[in-house]
Amino acid sequence: MRILVANVNTTASMTDAIAESARRVASPGTEIVGITPRFGADSCEGNFESYLAAIAVMDAVTSYPEPFDAVIQAGYGEHGREGLQELLDVPVVDITEAAASTAMYLGHKYSVVTTLDRTVPLIEDRLKLAGLDARCASVRASGLGVLELESDPGRAVEAIVREAREAVENDHAEVICLGCGGMAELEEKVTAATGVPIVDGVRAAVTIAEGLVRMGLSTSKVRTYATPRSKNITGWPFQS
Amino acid sequence: MRILVANVNTTASMTDAIAESARRVASPGTEIVGITPRFGADSCEGNFESYLAAIAVMDAVTSYPEPFDAVIQAGYGEHGREGLQELLDVPVVDITEAAASTAMYLGHKYSVVTTLDRTVPLIEDRLKLAGLDARCASVRASGLGVLELESDPGRAVEAIVREAREAVENDHAEVICLGCGGMAELEEKVTAATGVPIVDGVRAAVTIAEGLVRMGLSTSKVRTYATPRSKNITGWPFQS
Amino acid sequence: MRILVANVNTTASMTDAIAESARRVASPGTEIVGITPRFGADSCEGNFESYLAAIAVMDAVTSYPEPFDAVIQAGYGEHGREGLQELLDVPVVDITEAAASTAMYLGHKYSVVTTLDRTVPLIEDRLKLAGLDARCASVRASGLGVLELESDPGRAVEAIVREAREAVENDHAEVICLGCGGMAELEEKVTAATGVPIVDGVRAAVTIAEGLVRMGLSTSKVRTYATPRSKNITGWPFQS
Amino acid sequence: MRILVANVNTTASMTDAIAESARRVASPGTEIVGITPRFGADSCEGNFESYLAAIAVMDAVTSYPEPFDAVIQAGYGEHGREGLQELLDVPVVDITEAAASTAMYLGHKYSVVTTLDRTVPLIEDRLKLAGLDARCASVRASGLGVLELESDPGRAVEAIVREAREAVENDHAEVICLGCGGMAELEEKVTAATGVPIVDGVRAAVTIAEGLVRMGLSTSKVRTYATPRSKNITGWPFQS
Amino acid sequence: MRILVANVNTTASMTDAIAESARRVASPGTEIVGITPRFGADSCEGNFESYLAAIAVMDAVTSYPEPFDAVIQAGYGEHGREGLQELLDVPVVDITEAAASTAMYLGHKYSVVTTLDRTVPLIEDRLKLAGLDARCASVRASGLGVLELESDPGRAVEAIVREAREAVENDHAEVICLGCGGMAELEEKVTAATGVPIVDGVRAAVTIAEGLVRMGLSTSKVRTYATPRSKNITGWPFQS
Amino acid sequence: MRILVANVNTTASMTDAIAESARRVASPGTEIVGITPRFGADSCEGNFESYLAAIAVMDAVTSYPEPFDAVIQAGYGEHGREGLQELLDVPVVDITEAAASTAMYLGHKYSVVTTLDRTVPLIEDRLKLAGLDARCASVRASGLGVLELESDPGRAVEAIVREAREAVENDHAEVICLGCGGMAELEEKVTAATGVPIVDGVRAAVTIAEGLVRMGLSTSKVRTYATPRSKNITGWPFQS
Repeated sequence: MRILVANVNTTASMTDAIAESARRVASPGTEIVGITPRFGADSCEGNFESYLAAIAVMDAVTSYPEPFDAVIQAGYGEHGREGLQELLDVPVVDITEAAASTAMYLGHKYSVVTTLDRTVPLIEDRLKLAGLDARCASVRASGLGVLELESDPGRAVEAIVREAREAVENDHAEVICLGCGGMAELEEKVTAATGVPIVDGVRAAVTIAEGLVRMGLSTSKVRTYATPRSKNITGWPFQS
Repeated sequence: MRILVANVNTTASMTDAIAESARRVASPGTEIVGITPRFGADSCEGNFESYLAAIAVMDAVTSYPEPFDAVIQAGYGEHGREGLQELLDVPVVDITEAAASTAMYLGHKYSVVTTLDRTVPLIEDRLKLAGLDARCASVRASGLGVLELESDPGRAVEAIVREAREAVENDHAEVICLGCGGMAELEEKVTAATGVPIVDGVRAAVTIAEGLVRMGLSTSKVRTYATPRSKNITGWPFQS
Repeated sequence: MRILVANVNTTASMTDAIAESARRVASPGTEIVGITPRFGADSCEGNFESYLAAIAVMDAVTSYPEPFDAVIQAGYGEHGREGLQELLDVPVVDITEAAASTAMYLGHKYSVVTTLDRTVPLIEDRLKLAGLDARCASVRASGLGVLELESDPGRAVEAIVREAREAVENDHAEVICLGCGGMAELEEKVTAATGVPIVDGVRAAVTIAEGLVRMGLSTSKVRTYATPRSKNITGWPFQS
Repeated sequence: MRILVANVNTTASMTDAIAESARRVASPGTEIVGITPRFGADSCEGNFESYLAAIAVMDAVTSYPEPFDAVIQAGYGEHGREGLQELLDVPVVDITEAAASTAMYLGHKYSVVTTLDRTVPLIEDRLKLAGLDARCASVRASGLGVLELESDPGRAVEAIVREAREAVENDHAEVICLGCGGMAELEEKVTAATGVPIVDGVRAAVTIAEGLVRMGLSTSKVRTYATPRSKNITGWPFQS
Repeated sequence: MRILVANVNTTASMTDAIAESARRVASPGTEIVGITPRFGADSCEGNFESYLAAIAVMDAVTSYPEPFDAVIQAGYGEHGREGLQELLDVPVVDITEAAASTAMYLGHKYSVVTTLDRTVPLIEDRLKLAGLDARCASVRASGLGVLELESDPGRAVEAIVREAREAVENDHAEVICLGCGGMAELEEKVTAATGVPIVDGVRAAVTIAEGLVRMGLSTSKVRTYATPRSKNITGWPFQS
Repeated sequence: MRILVANVNTTASMTDAIAESARRVASPGTEIVGITPRFGADSCEGNFESYLAAIAVMDAVTSYPEPFDAVIQAGYGEHGREGLQELLDVPVVDITEAAASTAMYLGHKYSVVTTLDRTVPLIEDRLKLAGLDARCASVRASGLGVLELESDPGRAVEAIVREAREAVENDHAEVICLGCGGMAELEEKVTAATGVPIVDGVRAAVTIAEGLVRMGLSTSKVRTYATPRSKNITGWPFQS
C-alpha cells in the first residue's frame, strides 16, 4: 500500500520530517511518500497561505506519476480536503480530523496546542465543519511559528508543554493534539512532561488511512464529493 | 465609492450580469466594477472549482490597478472570503452571508434555492461557519447548472419557483434567498410567483458594503484576518 | 425615505442623541425621525421595563401621523420587535441584531459591551433567538446605568474601554458592539483606545434599513409576522 | 397556599375553565384563583397580542389585593414571564415550560399541539429560550383558533388527535403537550385516542408551583430577575 | 401514595438520610420508602460503580414486594434511569434531572456543586442527554468524596459554599443544585451562606413524582421505554 | 497484538460471527479473541438489557485470564464503554463510535441502519454523548430483531437496503453504518445494492484499536476514566 503524505508548505525538510514520522507507525508493507507543493508559502499560518496550499496540494497530488492508495493532507487547520476528495477515488485523510477523532477514543475532552494565535480560529473552524468540535475543550497557541518548531525544538517543547498543562488544568482536557504537521518529533517529550496521551495528527492519519484501505472503503461519490463535472477550465493544471 | 464585485467563474457575460444587477441597488455615487478571474472554471459547482476560484479571486482583486472601497465575493457557497479579508484593508462581503443576514430581518426562517444538489452542502457549510444557519430552514437545489440559468431563464424561473414554494410550505421558510450569483435577474418573477420576500445576495451585499464604508468600518486586523506575515512564497502572484 | 428611530425609554434627550447619531450615517435624502414613547421608564434596564417599552414603542409607532418607510427599534436587548413586525408593512430593524450582523462582517468573533450586569442575559437571549449568537464571544457589562452614559461620558468611555479590552484579550473578540442605544457618541473614543472596529447598533440599523428599502424588501407576511387577526381588544390603543 | 392562575386573554369564561382545570390537580389546602387581564385581546394568537398580554398580566397580578404564594402564567408560548419574575418575590411558572419539563419525565421526545400555525414559532422561541427544546420533536398546529376550542370542542378534539398521531408516527414524539391554556378539558379524549401521555400545561404548572412553595424556593434575585431598579415611570400602573 | 427512593450505593445510613430528607417535602398521605441496593459500592464516584448501581437499583426496585406509585433514582449523575423506565409502569424521576428542571424555574442559569472532580463529566453527560444543559452555567466539584459529606459535614458545607460562590460570581449561576443524593442536610446552611436558591435533587424529585402521580401520568410506552421484549435472560434477577 | 472483541449478548454463535468478521480486516500478527458474557440477554434491544450487558461485559473482560492489548465493545448503541475505560489500562473502542468516526472520513453525512425502532434513541443518545452526531443524517430501523439477522439473512439484506436507500435519497446520507454487531456479513450485499460506502462497526473498531496500539496510545487516566477508587464493593465480581 502506498500513502501520499502531502505537506502544505514548500519547505522540503519539513516534508521529510513529516514522512519520517509517518513511517514510524506505518504497517510493514506500507510505503509512505512525502510530497511537497510546487508553489505556495514556506509555512502556512493564515487563510491566504492556506487557500494557496489547498490548490498547491491538489496540483501536487494529481500530478504524482505513480498509483497510490490514500492521501494524507498534512496541514493542521488547512483548507482543501474537500477538493482532494472530489478529484480522487482513494481515501483522503486530513490530519486535523485524524488527531481529533483519535483523541476522542482516549479521553472525555481533548485540546489542541498549535503554533500562532492567528491559526486558532482556522483550526476551530475546521473542527466545527468536521463535526468534531463537541468534545474539544480548547485550541491553544504556543506562540511559536511553524518554522521555529524546526529551528528551536527545545523552546518549542517548553511552550507546548506549558499550554498543554494549562489545557489539562484549566480547560479539563484529558488528551492533547499536537496542532501542526511538524510537531511529531516533539511527541515523546511532551508526553513525558504532561502525563496525558499526546496525539500527533500525521501518525493518527496513517493508521486511519491504512484502516480505510484495508476495509476497502473510499470517499462516497453520490453527492458532496462526486467527481467534478466536465467543464472549461482556464489555467489548470498550473504546470501545463 | 468604488465597489469591486468579483465573479468566481471565468464567464465574462455572467460578470456583466452580476455587475448590472448590483448597480440597480447601488446608491448614487457608488461605482460598481465587475471583475472576472483570469483562471479557473467557467462555472463553479463543487469544491475543486471553488478552491480554484478562491485563489483566482484573490489574484484578480489584488491585481486590480485602481483604489477601491469594498469587495463583494459574488459566488454562492464558495471558499475564499477569509483570504481576501487578510489581504485587504477594505471590507469584504460574501454574498452567501449577505443574503442570509438580510433574510433574517424579513422573516423567522429563510431557505436558499440554489443550482445543483451537489452544491447544497457547500452552502450549508458556509452558513454554519458564518454562524448564520440557526434560522435557515433548508437549502434546496433547483437541479439546474449555473450556466443553464443564463441559457434557459424560463425553465430556471419555473424550477426555482417550485423549490421556493416547497420551502415555504414544507420547511416553513418565510423568505427565500436566491442561491447563485447569477440569479438576480430572476428575482421579480420569483417574487411574483411566491408571495414572499426574495433576497438576491449580490444586491444585499451591495447595501451592506455601502453601509460599512459609510460607517467607516473595515475588517478587524487583531487576529484571524491580520495581514499575512511576510514570508517566502513561490509562484504567487500567478501573473508574475 | 423616512425612517422612524424609536427610543425605548421616555428620556427625550436620549431620543435626540440617538436620532442625531443616526443622521451621521444616513444617506442624503433619508429623513431620520426620533420618536419617544408616551409611557414607560426613563431608562430600560430589565425585563419589566423592557416589556413596558415593547408596548409603548408599538403605541408610539402606530400613532405616528405621517407615512414612513422603515422603523428602527433603538433599544439594546429589548423586547417587542416581533410585535412591530406584525403591525407594520415596512421593515423593522432591531439595533441589537443590526450591531451583531454588522460585526460579523468585520471579524471572526464579536463581543457586546453594555450597561448594567442585569441586562446581559436579556441581550444574550435576544441574540440567541435571532440566531446571531454563534460568533458572540461575550456580553460584558460596564457597570454603568443607561442614564450615567449621558451624565458622565468620561467615566463611561473609561469603563467601556476597559471591558472592550478584556473582551479582545480574554474572550478573543475582534469587534466590539456598543450595547446601548445611547452609546453612539462614545464610538470614536472607544475606537481610538482599543484598535478594533466598534459597531454602534443605531448606525448599523440605519444602513440596514436603508438597504432593505432600496431593495424593495419588507417583512414576510406568510406566517410569524402576519398582520394580527381581527379581534376584540380592550384598552388599546392606550391613547384613545 | 394560594396560587394565582393568570389567563392571558380577556375572555372570562376561559379564565374560569383554566382555573377549574387547575383545581383538579391542586392539593388539598391549595386555593386556585383565576385572574383575567383588564385589557388586551380576547384571544392571543400572535406577538402583538402576546406583548400586550405580557403587560396586562403584570398589571393584573401586581394589583391583586390579597397575598399569594405563586403565580402561573397560563398562556402557551406567550411573552412576559421574566417581567413577572422581576416584580414578584413568589415563584412564577409558565405553562409552556411546565408542560415541556413535565413531558421530559415521561418520554424521550415530546411534541406540542397548538392552535394556529402562526403561533408555532412563538412556542418554538419560548422553548429555545427556556432551554427546553432539545427533546422537542415538533410543534404542530391544529389549525383552530383559541376561541374555537371552546365553541366547537368536538372538532377541536378531532384536529388535535390528528396532529398528535402525526407527531407520534412521523416526528417520533412519545408524549404530547397540549399547546394552549384552554385545552385542558380535552385531555381525557386526546389521551384515549392516542395512547400516549398527554400533558396539560396548566395542570403541570400547578404541581410545579406547589412543589416550589413546599420546598420554600422562589426566584433568585441576584441578577436577571432582580427587583426592578427604582426609576421614573410614566403611565404605570395603568389603572391609576 | 407510596414513593420508593432508591439510593445508588450500599450505605444504609445514607439511604436513611435521603429518605428522611424526602419526607420533609412530601405531602400528607405520601409514604416515602428508602431502598438500598443489595450489591454494588458503598459510594458511587465513577462510571464503573455507577453502571453497577444501575443494575443494582433495577434489582432492588423490581424485587420490592409491595405496590408503589413512583420511583426516585437518588444518585446524582448516575446511569440507569432509562432501564427502570422500561421495567416499570409507574413514573421514574432521576434527581439530577429533577434538580435541573426545578432550578430552571428559579433563575436564568444554574450550577451544580458535586463531590469529586471525576464525577463532573458524568453529571455533564446526564444533563446533556436529558436536554437540560442549555442553562447549566457549570458543574463544579467540592473535592470531597460522597462519604466525607456524612463524616465531616462542617468541612462539606465550607467546600460547597466556596464553590457555590464561585459559580455565582464567575459562572453567572443564579441557582445552585446540590450535586449528590447525600447533600440534602446541608441545604439550609448553604442557602444562608450564598443568598441564592439551593435545590436539593431528592426533594425536587419528590415534588415532581407526586405531581406526575396526581396528574395520572406515567412513562410513555410507545417507543424508547416500551416494556422489554420477552427473551432468554441468563443470571437475572440476581437474587434468584 | 491481542484484541478482545466483546459481544454484548449471550448468543455464542453471534460472538463467533463477530470475531470472524473482525479477523477479515485484522493485520497479520493481530489475534482476535471473541468473548461472550456469562449473564444477560441473548440479544440486546433496549436499555434494560443494555445496562445488564454493560456489567456483563465488564465482568467478562476483567476475568479474561490472559493479557490483551485492546478491547472492542461490539454492541451498537449500548451502555458501558466508560466503565471499561476506567477498569482497564488498554484502549477501549466502541463500535457505534468506530463506525461513525470512520464514516465521517468518507462522506459529508452518514446514516445508521439498525434493527428495531426502539433501539434508535439509544444509538442517537450514544452518538450525541460521543460528540459524533453533528454529521449524522438519520438513524433508521429495519424493523428486524437482532436474532432475525442471523436466522433470515435474505430478508435482513432486503430491509437494510430499503432503509439505506431511503437514507441516501431522503436524508442526504452519503455513507451507511450497519447499526448492529451482527450485521457484518451483510456488508457486501448492501454495498452492491446501494452504491455508497457501507461501514461495519466491528471492522472499523479493529482498525482503530490496532492504530491506537501501534501509536502506543491508551485511555487518559487524569480525570473521567481514572482507575476506580478503592472502596467496599458487595457482590462483585459476580463469579466469585
